[in-house]
Amino acid sequence: MTKPTPRPAGNFFEDFRLGQHIEHATPRTITDGECALYIALTGARQPVHCATPVAQDLGYPSKPVDDLLAFHIAFAKTVPDISVNAVANLGYADVRFLRPVYVGDTLSTASTVIGLKQNSNGKSGVVYVRSESRNQHSEVVLSWVRWVMVHKHDLQAPAPETVIPTLPEVVIRANLAVPRFLRAAQLDAQVTGSARLWNDYVIGERIAHPAGMTVEEADHTLATKLYQNNARLHFDALMMQDSPFKRRLMYGGHVISVCRALSYDGLENVISIAAINGGTHSNPSFGGDTFYAVTEVLEKWELPGHHDLGALRLRLIGLRNLPADQFDSLHIEQDGKSGYHPQVVLDLDYTVLMPRR
Amino acid sequence: MTKPTPRPAGNFFEDFRLGQHIEHATPRTITDGECALYIALTGARQPVHCATPVAQDLGYPSKPVDDLLAFHIAFAKTVPDISVNAVANLGYADVRFLRPVYVGDTLSTASTVIGLKQNSNGKSGVVYVRSESRNQHSEVVLSWVRWVMVHKHDLQAPAPETVIPTLPEVVIRANLAVPRFLRAAQLDAQVTGSARLWNDYVIGERIAHPAGMTVEEADHTLATKLYQNNARLHFDALMMQDSPFKRRLMYGGHVISVCRALSYDGLENVISIAAINGGTHSNPSFGGDTFYAVTEVLEKWELPGHHDLGALRLRLIGLRNLPADQFDSLHIEQDGKSGYHPQVVLDLDYTVLMPRR
Amino acid sequence: MTKPTPRPAGNFFEDFRLGQHIEHATPRTITDGECALYIALTGARQPVHCATPVAQDLGYPSKPVDDLLAFHIAFAKTVPDISVNAVANLGYADVRFLRPVYVGDTLSTASTVIGLKQNSNGKSGVVYVRSESRNQHSEVVLSWVRWVMVHKHDLQAPAPETVIPTLPEVVIRANLAVPRFLRAAQLDAQVTGSARLWNDYVIGERIAHPAGMTVEEADHTLATKLYQNNARLHFDALMMQDSPFKRRLMYGGHVISVCRALSYDGLENVISIAAINGGTHSNPSFGGDTFYAVTEVLEKWELPGHHDLGALRLRLIGLRNLPADQFDSLHIEQDGKSGYHPQVVLDLDYTVLMPRR
Repeated sequence: MTKPTPRPAGNFFEDFRLGQHIEHATPRTITDGECALYIALTGARQPVHCATPVAQDLGYPSKPVDDLLAFHIAFAKTVPDISVNAVANLGYADVRFLRPVYVGDTLSTASTVIGLKQNSNGKSGVVYVRSESRNQHSEVVLSWVRWVMVHKHDLQAPAPETVIPTLPEVVIRANLAVPRFLRAAQLDAQVTGSARLWNDYVIGERIAHPAGMTVEEADHTLATKLYQNNARLHFDALMMQDSPFKRRLMYGGHVISVCRALSYDGLENVISIAAINGGTHSNPSFGGDTFYAVTEVLEKWELPGHHDLGALRLRLIGLRNLPADQFDSLHIEQDGKSGYHPQVVLDLDYTVLMPRR
Repeated sequence: MTKPTPRPAGNFFEDFRLGQHIEHATPRTITDGECALYIALTGARQPVHCATPVAQDLGYPSKPVDDLLAFHIAFAKTVPDISVNAVANLGYADVRFLRPVYVGDTLSTASTVIGLKQNSNGKSGVVYVRSESRNQHSEVVLSWVRWVMVHKHDLQAPAPETVIPTLPEVVIRANLAVPRFLRAAQLDAQVTGSARLWNDYVIGERIAHPAGMTVEEADHTLATKLYQNNARLHFDALMMQDSPFKRRLMYGGHVISVCRALSYDGLENVISIAAINGGTHSNPSFGGDTFYAVTEVLEKWELPGHHDLGALRLRLIGLRNLPADQFDSLHIEQDGKSGYHPQVVLDLDYTVLMPRR
Repeated sequence: MTKPTPRPAGNFFEDFRLGQHIEHATPRTITDGECALYIALTGARQPVHCATPVAQDLGYPSKPVDDLLAFHIAFAKTVPDISVNAVANLGYADVRFLRPVYVGDTLSTASTVIGLKQNSNGKSGVVYVRSESRNQHSEVVLSWVRWVMVHKHDLQAPAPETVIPTLPEVVIRANLAVPRFLRAAQLDAQVTGSARLWNDYVIGERIAHPAGMTVEEADHTLATKLYQNNARLHFDALMMQDSPFKRRLMYGGHVISVCRALSYDGLENVISIAAINGGTHSNPSFGGDTFYAVTEVLEKWELPGHHDLGALRLRLIGLRNLPADQFDSLHIEQDGKSGYHPQVVLDLDYTVLMPRR
């Protein structure tokens, strides 16, 4: 007697209501274990996250968790409720890193539906959610918006009123959170391996990061399980044999992490990520791919009240099986249309904090 | 001058004596590092083991280690003395989880020979051992019986008197350990993702857990090394080329862990494993296999003195390369004989604690 | 506008000056997370590093990090400055383990150029560096010499004066550091699994360690990223397709770790590594290789002032795809020349401390 599940798990388009608030399950404590594994999975070397004394010199009370590790764990909590029935993850915006997450902190994530739009085919729709992750002191540490296309289960369910939220193109300077205690000038070149500070970067400059990294199936599935992101398409090779990809798809967030780790050589003095303004996973990535990264400097901002710190708005371009020094153009023309170069897998717009002179 | 080892390492059938007590080597401290890696290797999401505040709300003084992680580590200690020369691991029974194991605890395991039976061929025999693992306070945290078929090295050694211990079919309710401090009602649906409690499960019900997980060679060998289980057939691919399997065999305990992690969706409110009544690894598992899980509810027990908690006796069926919703029957008839379906790799009978209304 | 890097990153032969002092970047805190992952990656079982109470019984104030894990992390720090443009890692000597590294310690590494010799082709040269790694209390915990062949970038740069440092064949007994607090006699056979102590080993004896271990691409790349060793040839499979090896090369240090872990069965009572006298990575190793290990006892030393402890100088022979019990000779004759057997990948000369009666 197999108990038939009345309908598949997770929410469908018709289950979402504007203004609906969802507290996501399975809060997570981030320990030194998660941090060590993150280093092994990505090759990350940012000293603030690898060396407690460096963090303390900068004013952190203890070792902060890598921004992206915290983000992936916070984000993963939303998957069972928001995107397990997703047709596609369409985008994210206004990702703000509001407070450091420290080793030992426990993150819980909640989401609010801020937009809905049924597709004209009547079979699916787009759901916009604002998600926030809080630590054990109920302080918001991360806030972001994403929108996903979700199947309808009951095709007869009426279409909701269309509401499309207005989202910022970029997290503006005034919305960047800078820890008050931060003594940015304490980060010295000896610790990071480079004397290049905020002042030395030029808008429009492009950095071809030298290293490449091959990611095995075991690597990305270990990472995605570490984040407790249980979206099936990353794990179930048998199911994915019947997909257009024929194999497991790599979690896009892990591609961000790998490319960001590669970008250390050339961006050594980044202290933290302040915001992700938006991003496109322009092509799928798979186990066995070798990644390379290119960074473009989009903007430079002074930060009022912080004479020793500036913000850099960067474009991180992730390349699959194409070394960074062979990369030329993000887009190609094909059949009269412009699209992403097939070896560009990531086009991420984000903002970092860096010491200035 | 290679020093010839007088005989292979480990014990042979004739080395075991009824009543013999063996203190196993290499005690192990279980840290946050082991816990994080366990999550990455299995995808486990039980909040009690992932979120310290959840554990504390339930009354645990600090974060308890996943029951199966503790078991695999405790069990692994017995391998060099008991099963390194095993022909086959025949079974286990009366596995009791007597006390929580906390992050930072150090486990040591000892075994007593409780049964012996030489096989009629005179070349091997069955050894029954009761093993106990203790923490650094000398408290028994785990106790179990297993029996293995072990080669004889000296075929002339006389057969011992046959003693076959009486083993319980099931760990009876009175033998289930429930921590006194446990405030089961504190586990809320928001934390676990489901409001389904002990009261809501029906005897005979079958749950087809939705997710699948592909396990790479690197995954299961990392896990088994993490447990410090050094049985060679899991690690030595060159040696295994000459085996009937032609490749490394996955440690059966890791199959249990993966299937149990898959069973989270449908059994969200399990607080802990109280007992393993028995189990059969009905077919071998290998790197590259995709696992699915089905649970059957066998029994429901109230627990005297615990009005907020009940026990569920469950059958966890592990499937290899067969999605749970395609699973029909555990056994098939072939050549007039009934046997396990070739894609059933695990048939585990165990008992969990769950909050009740 | 891709900003052309004026020249590749890292130092070239002409950049090194005799007496030059280099403080290497990205100090690293070693946590329980690193330790757990090291166990999972190598199968290490030394109780001093796995069980806090065992370490404390021996007098350690807390759990010391595995000697080789500490070494790999300390060593990795030198890669970006010293060997990222290396043609070949030629050798190492006088590796001294001066103080235990404890969980929570932060290591920083600095190097001094102690020798230079331009090659006769004028295109490269050999650089000798003495490196030291210090903990957060500025105490030197590790000291070693290595020499690498490095490309010249500017072929017109004048050759430096040739200086070749005198290096010891072996770290002499007087230079072995023994922690004052060490109570070696507290390590009992029950904890390690063997009663064989320093007294029982015989000079010239050869131990064929029984186990084998297959190392996947994911295993060695995870390990090398864990160490934060960013030498590209270990990670970039695409780049390595054009190398003579056609694939990623395994970091030699990880081969040492795997072989040392295999050597536990036969050397159970080793407390710590006191020195590495020298080593040869006689053949390359790759993902998919199965490793075996053989140990030869080279020397036995009493340690003045330590009646309960002796030193063993050992030769650890690492074998690739050749079981230890089939190993015969380290060298073979081919075309009238003697060279390493093609399946010997490691010939390591090192010194350990072990309790004595």
